[in-house]
Amino acid sequence: MAHPAHPPDARPTVTAVEVHDVRFPTSDHLDGSDAMNPDPDYSAAYVVLRTDRGPDGHGFAFTIGRGNDVTAAAIGALRPHLLGRPAPRTAADLAALHRDLTHDSQLRWLGPEKGVVHMAAGAVVNAAWDLAATAAGLPVWEFLSRMSPEELVSLVDFRHLTDALTPDEALALLRAAEPGRAARAARLRAEGYPAYTTSPGWLGRDDATLVRLARQAVADGFGQIKLKVGADPGDDVRRLALARAAVGPGVRIALDANQRWDVPEALRRLAELAPYDPYWIEEPTSPDDVLGHAAVRAGQPVPVATGEHGANRVLFKQLLQAGAVDFVQIDAARVAGVNDNVAVLLLAAKYGVPVCPHAGGVGLCELVQHLAMFDYVAVSGTLENRVVEYVDHLHEHFTHPVAVRAGRYAAPTAPGFSARMRPESLAAHRYPDGPVWQDRKDTRRA
Amino acid sequence: MAHPAHPPDARPTVTAVEVHDVRFPTSDHLDGSDAMNPDPDYSAAYVVLRTDRGPDGHGFAFTIGRGNDVTAAAIGALRPHLLGRPAPRTAADLAALHRDLTHDSQLRWLGPEKGVVHMAAGAVVNAAWDLAATAAGLPVWEFLSRMSPEELVSLVDFRHLTDALTPDEALALLRAAEPGRAARAARLRAEGYPAYTTSPGWLGRDDATLVRLARQAVADGFGQIKLKVGADPGDDVRRLALARAAVGPGVRIALDANQRWDVPEALRRLAELAPYDPYWIEEPTSPDDVLGHAAVRAGQPVPVATGEHGANRVLFKQLLQAGAVDFVQIDAARVAGVNDNVAVLLLAAKYGVPVCPHAGGVGLCELVQHLAMFDYVAVSGTLENRVVEYVDHLHEHFTHPVAVRAGRYAAPTAPGFSARMRPESLAAHRYPDGPVWQDRKDTRRA
Repeated sequence: MAHPAHPPDARPTVTAVEVHDVRFPTSDHLDGSDAMNPDPDYSAAYVVLRTDRGPDGHGFAFTIGRGNDVTAAAIGALRPHLLGRPAPRTAADLAALHRDLTHDSQLRWLGPEKGVVHMAAGAVVNAAWDLAATAAGLPVWEFLSRMSPEELVSLVDFRHLTDALTPDEALALLRAAEPGRAARAARLRAEGYPAYTTSPGWLGRDDATLVRLARQAVADGFGQIKLKVGADPGDDVRRLALARAAVGPGVRIALDANQRWDVPEALRRLAELAPYDPYWIEEPTSPDDVLGHAAVRAGQPVPVATGEHGANRVLFKQLLQAGAVDFVQIDAARVAGVNDNVAVLLLAAKYGVPVCPHAGGVGLCELVQHLAMFDYVAVSGTLENRVVEYVDHLHEHFTHPVAVRAGRYAAPTAPGFSARMRPESLAAHRYPDGPVWQDRKDTRRA
Repeated sequence: MAHPAHPPDARPTVTAVEVHDVRFPTSDHLDGSDAMNPDPDYSAAYVVLRTDRGPDGHGFAFTIGRGNDVTAAAIGALRPHLLGRPAPRTAADLAALHRDLTHDSQLRWLGPEKGVVHMAAGAVVNAAWDLAATAAGLPVWEFLSRMSPEELVSLVDFRHLTDALTPDEALALLRAAEPGRAARAARLRAEGYPAYTTSPGWLGRDDATLVRLARQAVADGFGQIKLKVGADPGDDVRRLALARAAVGPGVRIALDANQRWDVPEALRRLAELAPYDPYWIEEPTSPDDVLGHAAVRAGQPVPVATGEHGANRVLFKQLLQAGAVDFVQIDAARVAGVNDNVAVLLLAAKYGVPVCPHAGGVGLCELVQHLAMFDYVAVSGTLENRVVEYVDHLHEHFTHPVAVRAGRYAAPTAPGFSARMRPESLAAHRYPDGPVWQDRKDTRRA
């Protein structure tokens, strides 16, 4: 079909939705191994919103291997909402897109707002934010931080949230934080945002490596490290004792059980681990178990963190209502993207609970740094007890990888969401036909 | 590859996993319309486990249109767990299959235990039960009802449940119900299981049709009907008043809000509806909102029912722990099939809450009748306050459709799970290339 020449003020249009199944063979080296996920192949169901003019938008859902194709198929199922749509630019555009994707009445049946269809919506919503922020010439954290309180409130779907947070309450929170925005943004640019590292503590590490990497983390400027627990109880206590001895009393050691325990077992295990002063216990039980987390928090002294598998806004609302958590861990790509995470940041601010985002995987550090920085500038207004996870792998595949120096994330300056993978990385890791996977054809994965 | 002849006692093997995307154009006539789902096209991601000898197994996940292809893709992603596997026959086989599907560490990341991947596991687990019961020459309700308490307990994944129900407690419940099994099975065969009908109350019906169908339902022997609410408040009150006047005070009228309300709105609306004596309010708010349902139950007089969108075992556990529900509504195909539903039936029995299964859609009546009858024979041991939903459409597509007479489900006698669609129905409704859809190519759905 012949298109007429665009008048100069016409809006660019989404003309194609490219979906890539990209996988990294991380299980070769047990990077990322934990009690529930012994052999992850870090993967992305990666989406590019192509437009006829102006910037494209890149986003992805993070998975750990099998099923990345299913998530890619779910992204493809969103095409009817995207093709021919004006390229999103404003808060209103981004709010409308988020609602169209999450309120599609037929797709909603497959959730609602959970699992594969919700992760797919998240990939697309984040791609739209990448597009809009790139068009505005701003990194997403700054693009968000320049929106008015009214615009920010308009991004949020308040359905099923108003018993905990009304739009008026959200507006009041955002207005209260408005005066200090410029000063906090300047501080971020100068000092960055605190990070912690999980690299020493994967279950696949032997004791000597754990101790060496824990010391290295402190030498590199991290004030907090994290250890995986939840396999053998004796191993957990020994590893925590070794780590504590290695880093001394002044460094925070968080623990992560990756959902491995039932509530009674969590209480027993944490009683054994508490003497080594863990900073938090993450995912002590099922990520859906609001009441379980509340019971774990009430029944032993270690503070509780969860959220990386939090399926949606309603789950986070309940964790806060029930007093189930000391730390909320948002994930950039499991819920329906930026809009849902703005909802969670506002809920956490209302309840006074710090948000410490989950990262790692592939590209999650890149995305989530923007959300944490926005939280500091425009929502919570504080860095107290806030820290973003950092894992030091797979960053080389991104055009604008995170920069973590002296234990802090440097504030991104490039326009967009830091979400773009390098074209040669996309091509090499395409599953199953990219060269990285063709080389493995006759191995265990074939 | 050449296979040697099977020795006569060797186990049949799963040789193919057929997946069909089957959709019915129900939105043509607004059958099934409600406040959240205005235009459903009832669909099935349908799976056949083919074996080299002996019966096949049929199962499906129910969806309402778009995204049925994504669910079908998720079923396909389970093939590595199925191809070459001995055809399941015993409780141990069925327990192992359920665990392999729901504990696949990479696919689990896409849930865990929720949404598309969990529904896909449910389709396959149910197909395996169809296969095993067919091989045993028994309908699933009877196949289950003949298992020992120990076998039944072995079917259940107790991970993340033991703070509410331990295997020993479950065993005690089942043993207590054992003596009456034969008498209750005989009563079921003689009298059937109580049903209620939703057919009068779809939002798409006008008032005259509502009144006519409500009276017809009573004349047909139903002691309970259900109305959809949650759109215009005035309409809800008027429709309920009309229905109450039509059926009189002795017939139960259940209401279904299909998740439409926030908690504060649910409390306001139910205060207006309560004078007409509704039997329950179903899905008053988000299906994930345990605390919200508890608040609705505590804050007004209408009993609360939910569960058709209950994502998994852990959600049902919490609904019971929190005292959030008066009725638990299991769905046969949203959780991971029979095994997960045995877990929920046991949890409900422990807390003394009646289970009134969700049905309708396509084939859900066929499946869920087996679970309710098993509950009566071997778990709860009672019909008190128990009733199974019935919707009178799409049954003609099944080889062994439900038989509902005088307001009761007749106990199935054919071996298997009543899950088999007629081959000509599968062919005609295949999406998008079946003749039913080819005829609609240039309509709104194209």
